[in-house]
Amino acid sequence: MTEGKEHNEDDHVVFIGSKPFMNYVTGVVMQFTTQGADEVVIKGRGKFITRCVDVAEVVGKRFLDGQVALKDVKLDSEEFENKEGKRIRVSTIEITLKKK
Amino acid sequence: MTEGKEHNEDDHVVFIGSKPFMNYVTGVVMQFTTQGADEVVIKGRGKFITRCVDVAEVVGKRFLDGQVALKDVKLDSEEFENKEGKRIRVSTIEITLKKK
Repeated sequence: MTEGKEHNEDDHVVFIGSKPFMNYVTGVVMQFTTQGADEVVIKGRGKFITRCVDVAEVVGKRFLDGQVALKDVKLDSEEFENKEGKRIRVSTIEITLKKK
Repeated sequence: MTEGKEHNEDDHVVFIGSKPFMNYVTGVVMQFTTQGADEVVIKGRGKFITRCVDVAEVVGKRFLDGQVALKDVKLDSEEFENKEGKRIRVSTIEITLKKK
């Protein structure tokens, strides 16, 4: 990361995991309302993908209805080897919300 | 649906549910390989959203690698009342794969 750069793409990213659902919703909302974010990227993988979509929908349709819109959704996969040397594929998602 | 119309948008839709994973992968692949689909839409909601992404990734990166590409991802939510009269929100996804 470059220091001194005011806004880089890593500034406003929220990774979705197994914490309570509302933590993530609040996290995304706060990025927009108190951190001055123009865009927030919601990232997750595997079983958390559904949750990423839920967070994006609750932020966009309930908490910041009319204020943020869905800008982009990227899907991808990561491959890695597990302990037994078996190749595992995991899907990933990146949802970008943008201030209107 | 209009009869006589050769291709309407409902032709090539695969709804993802709780059947074995490979049923859906095969279903999507067959739409492209034997049904002449130019585009296939993978739809699902709630907990099946992760599965929709998995199906799209496995079709695009493994079975039809280099032959189909991700065209579009739509996110939305549906609201309805459950038996107790409580409003429930469920996220939905529509992933469109397109022949290259």
